[in-house]
Amino acid sequence: MSRNVTILGAGLVGSLLAIILRKKGHEVKLYERRPDMRKANMSAGKSINLAMSARGWKALELAGLKSDMETLAIPMYGRYLHQPDGQTAFQPYSKNNEAIYSVSRGELNRKLMTLAEQSGVTIHFDHKCTGVDVPNNVLTFGTPQGEVTEKADLLFGADGAFSALRNSYTHMDRVNCDHFYLEYGYKELSIPPGPNGEWLLEKNALHIWPRGKYMMIALPNTDGTFTCTMFMPFEGEVAFDKLNTEADVNKLFDEQFADAKPLMPTLMEDFFTNPTSSLITTHISAWRYKDKSALIGDAAHAIVPFYGQGMNAGFEDCTVLSGLIDDYGADWSAILQEYERKRKPNGDAVASLALMNFVEMRDKVADPVFLERKKIEKELGKRYPKEFISVYEMVSFSHIPYNTAIQCTQAQDRLLGQVMSEGNFFENIEQGAFCDRLDNWMSAYHKEVQQLDFDNEAG
Amino acid sequence: MSRNVTILGAGLVGSLLAIILRKKGHEVKLYERRPDMRKANMSAGKSINLAMSARGWKALELAGLKSDMETLAIPMYGRYLHQPDGQTAFQPYSKNNEAIYSVSRGELNRKLMTLAEQSGVTIHFDHKCTGVDVPNNVLTFGTPQGEVTEKADLLFGADGAFSALRNSYTHMDRVNCDHFYLEYGYKELSIPPGPNGEWLLEKNALHIWPRGKYMMIALPNTDGTFTCTMFMPFEGEVAFDKLNTEADVNKLFDEQFADAKPLMPTLMEDFFTNPTSSLITTHISAWRYKDKSALIGDAAHAIVPFYGQGMNAGFEDCTVLSGLIDDYGADWSAILQEYERKRKPNGDAVASLALMNFVEMRDKVADPVFLERKKIEKELGKRYPKEFISVYEMVSFSHIPYNTAIQCTQAQDRLLGQVMSEGNFFENIEQGAFCDRLDNWMSAYHKEVQQLDFDNEAG
Repeated sequence: MSRNVTILGAGLVGSLLAIILRKKGHEVKLYERRPDMRKANMSAGKSINLAMSARGWKALELAGLKSDMETLAIPMYGRYLHQPDGQTAFQPYSKNNEAIYSVSRGELNRKLMTLAEQSGVTIHFDHKCTGVDVPNNVLTFGTPQGEVTEKADLLFGADGAFSALRNSYTHMDRVNCDHFYLEYGYKELSIPPGPNGEWLLEKNALHIWPRGKYMMIALPNTDGTFTCTMFMPFEGEVAFDKLNTEADVNKLFDEQFADAKPLMPTLMEDFFTNPTSSLITTHISAWRYKDKSALIGDAAHAIVPFYGQGMNAGFEDCTVLSGLIDDYGADWSAILQEYERKRKPNGDAVASLALMNFVEMRDKVADPVFLERKKIEKELGKRYPKEFISVYEMVSFSHIPYNTAIQCTQAQDRLLGQVMSEGNFFENIEQGAFCDRLDNWMSAYHKEVQQLDFDNEAG
Repeated sequence: MSRNVTILGAGLVGSLLAIILRKKGHEVKLYERRPDMRKANMSAGKSINLAMSARGWKALELAGLKSDMETLAIPMYGRYLHQPDGQTAFQPYSKNNEAIYSVSRGELNRKLMTLAEQSGVTIHFDHKCTGVDVPNNVLTFGTPQGEVTEKADLLFGADGAFSALRNSYTHMDRVNCDHFYLEYGYKELSIPPGPNGEWLLEKNALHIWPRGKYMMIALPNTDGTFTCTMFMPFEGEVAFDKLNTEADVNKLFDEQFADAKPLMPTLMEDFFTNPTSSLITTHISAWRYKDKSALIGDAAHAIVPFYGQGMNAGFEDCTVLSGLIDDYGADWSAILQEYERKRKPNGDAVASLALMNFVEMRDKVADPVFLERKKIEKELGKRYPKEFISVYEMVSFSHIPYNTAIQCTQAQDRLLGQVMSEGNFFENIEQGAFCDRLDNWMSAYHKEVQQLDFDNEAG
C-alpha cells in the first residue's frame, strides 16, 4: 500500500531517501529551504569534502547511482602526514588496499536531486519549514510567497542538524535531547591545480597536518584542486581569535605549514573571507512519532566530521529503513519502531566515534607509538583475519554496526597494550613463545567480542 | 542609572525579581502567559507544595515579604516515615530544631504579584511569549488580541522550564543545552481535614511513604488539608500504566498505603481526574546575552522537586543578582557576566543534588543503616560544629553554595564510612581510643573540604 511521503530537506540524505521510497512505489514530495543549487551558485565556503566509504556506496547502489559516482570519486588509500619540519609519511587505511573516496558534496547532491526528479519526485525549493504540529503532521513553511501549511501523510525529517522536525520533537513531553558544540571551529581554505592542471600534492591520499591542539586537512577534487580545512580552537593560545591580521596568518603558516603555504596563493583571501564555522553533536531520544514521522541523517544524529562518517551514517539509515520496508510491508508502525530501535544506538555510537577520532587525527597520528600500533593492527588483521578487524576498518570498510565497533574499542586497546608491552612486535613475532602468547591474547579478545552483533547494517 | 526591565513570567521568581528591581528604582514590566490567577480559579491539580528553606526566606526578606509569609507557613521539623505495615518513625532534619516550611505556591504567588503591582510594576496577563530575537531583544507575544511585538531594554526570562527565552538561546551558535525527563511521573492527591478542621496526620512534618521504586509524600496546608503527591514510574511493574481501574488503585493502596487510604475519601476522583505529570531537568551553557538578557530560576535550571529546592534556588538567583547590582551599579555587562559565572555552577549542582535526593527519599529513608547514619551525622555536627555540617543541612539551612555542598558529598560518604565501619557508633563514642581516631578522621575531612568556597550565597 503506497503512502504519500513528505521529506524535509533535499540534501544528500533527503534526496537519496526520496529515490529509494519512489522506487518502492510511494508518492514523494521534497521540501528544501534553499533555492535550487543546480541553478544558483551556492558555494558557501563551508563544505567539508565528503569521504565516501562502504556504507555510503551501499546506499548509492540501492539508488542506482553507484557506478555513476565512482567515475567522479577519488580513492584515498591512506593518511598522508605533513610534519612541521617538512617530513612526510604515508599511513595506509587498510591491509587490503581499500580506500575511502573523496567526493564533491555539491556534485553528489545535484545528481541525487536530478535522479529524484527523474524518478517522479517533486522538489519544492525555497520552502523553509518553520514548525511541525507533530501529532497532526501539519507543517508550516515560510516561502517567498508567504506562509504555507501542508498536511503530511508520512513525514521524514532529513533537514539536518537544525532540523525543524527535531526541534518540534524536543518540545514534546518526555523527549530527551542534548546538543553541544566543540570548542573548535573550522575554516575552508584551498590549493589550486598546478600549471598543467595537475594535483600539487599526492592525489590519492587524505592529507593531514597534525599539530596537537589544531590541524589542517586536505582532500583532492577532480579538477586538480584540494579543499583544505583548518580545525582550530575558537579561543586560546593558537586559535581563530588570535588570527586577526595577515601577519598573524603568515606567521602561523610559515612556522607550522611551511610546505603547504607556497601552494596556497589565495590563503589570505580564503582565510579572511570564508566563515569560521562551528561543530555540533546532537542526541535525541525520539527518532519517530508513531507511524507518522521519523528523523533521519543529521536530523537524528548530527556528528562532527572527523571520521568522515556523517553522510555514510545517514545513507546507512536509508539502507536499513529500505530493508525494514521490505520486511514489514505496509506496517509503518512496525517499520518506524524497528528503525528507531536498530539505528539509534548506532547513531549515538558514530557520534562518539567521530569525537574520539578528532583526538586521533589532530594529535595521535604524529605519535610514533600510534603509528607502530597501526602497523601492528594491520599485521594482526592479516594473521587473524577471522578474529581481528581494527575499529577503523570496521567503521570505514565494513557494514558492522557502529555500536559494535565502539564496543570493540576497549578490547582492542587492551589487546594492543598486551602485544606492545613486550617491545618490538616485528622482532617478537619471529619467536615461537611470543606467537603462542599472541594466540592466547587473540583468542581471549575474540571470545570477548564475538558475543557482539556483527550482523551488517541490519544492526 | 535606571533601566527599563522586561520580565517574562509572573511566577514566583519573576514576581520576586520584579519587586527587587523596582525597589532599586528600575521600571519593570512583567509578561505572564496565563490569566490573572488572583481572578481565575487556577488549580491545575499539579502543584507540588513548596518547602521554603533558608535561601527562600532570605530572598523574601529582601522583598519585604518575610514576616507576612511566616504567618502562613507551616514548619516541618523532619520526615515522618510511614511503613507498609503501618509503623511510623520521625526523623528530624536538623540538630538545632530547624525546619523547612510548607507554603502554598498559589498563595505566595498571589502575594508576590500584588506586592509587585503595589510597588509600581505593570503585569500583562494572557501574553504568551512565542519567540525572542536575542541580539535585538525583540519579543513576540501571542495574546487574545493577536500577535504583539515589544522591544526590550533589559530582559529577564523567568518563564520556567519551557522558557521562551531559553528556547531562543538554544538556537544560538555555540550554546550547549540538554534536557531530560525522569522515567517517573507524579500525581496530586489529597487528605481533607478532620471533622473539627484538624490535621489528620502530624501537622509539623513532611510525610513520606517510601516504597523503594515509588513513594507518596504529603505536606500540610493551613486549612487542615494535606497535599499528597504520588511519584511512580510511568511504565513498569508498579507504575502509572498499570493503574487503570479503581480496583487497581484500591489494591495498591490497601497493600502499600493502608494507613493513608482511610484518610483519602476523594482518592478515586483525584487519581483519575488529576493529570500524571512529568519531571524535567534542564541545563544550558549560556545564562545571559551580553548586557541585554539573562535567564533566572527554572528557565536557567529546571530541577526535579526532591530536595524542595526549586523555588529556593530561583530565589537565591534573585538574592545574588541583587547583591551584584549593588556591587556593580550601572555596569550590566559585568553584573550579568558575574551572575552567570557565580550561579551556573550552583544551578548545575542543585540539579544533581535534587536527582540524588530522589533515591534517598523513595528508598534509603526506610533503610536502618541510613537512619543510623542520619543520627550519627547529627551527633558529629554537635561534637564538631566548626568542622562538620551535613550536606542536607548545608542545602536546607545554610547559604553555603550548592556547588560546595555537592563537593562535600563524597568526603562525607568517606568519613561516615570510616565512622560506621567500627560498629555501633553510640557505644564506640564512649571509648577514648575511638574518639581519638574520630578526631583524626574529622580533621582529615575538614582539611579536605575547607579549601572549598563556603562563602554564603555570593557563591
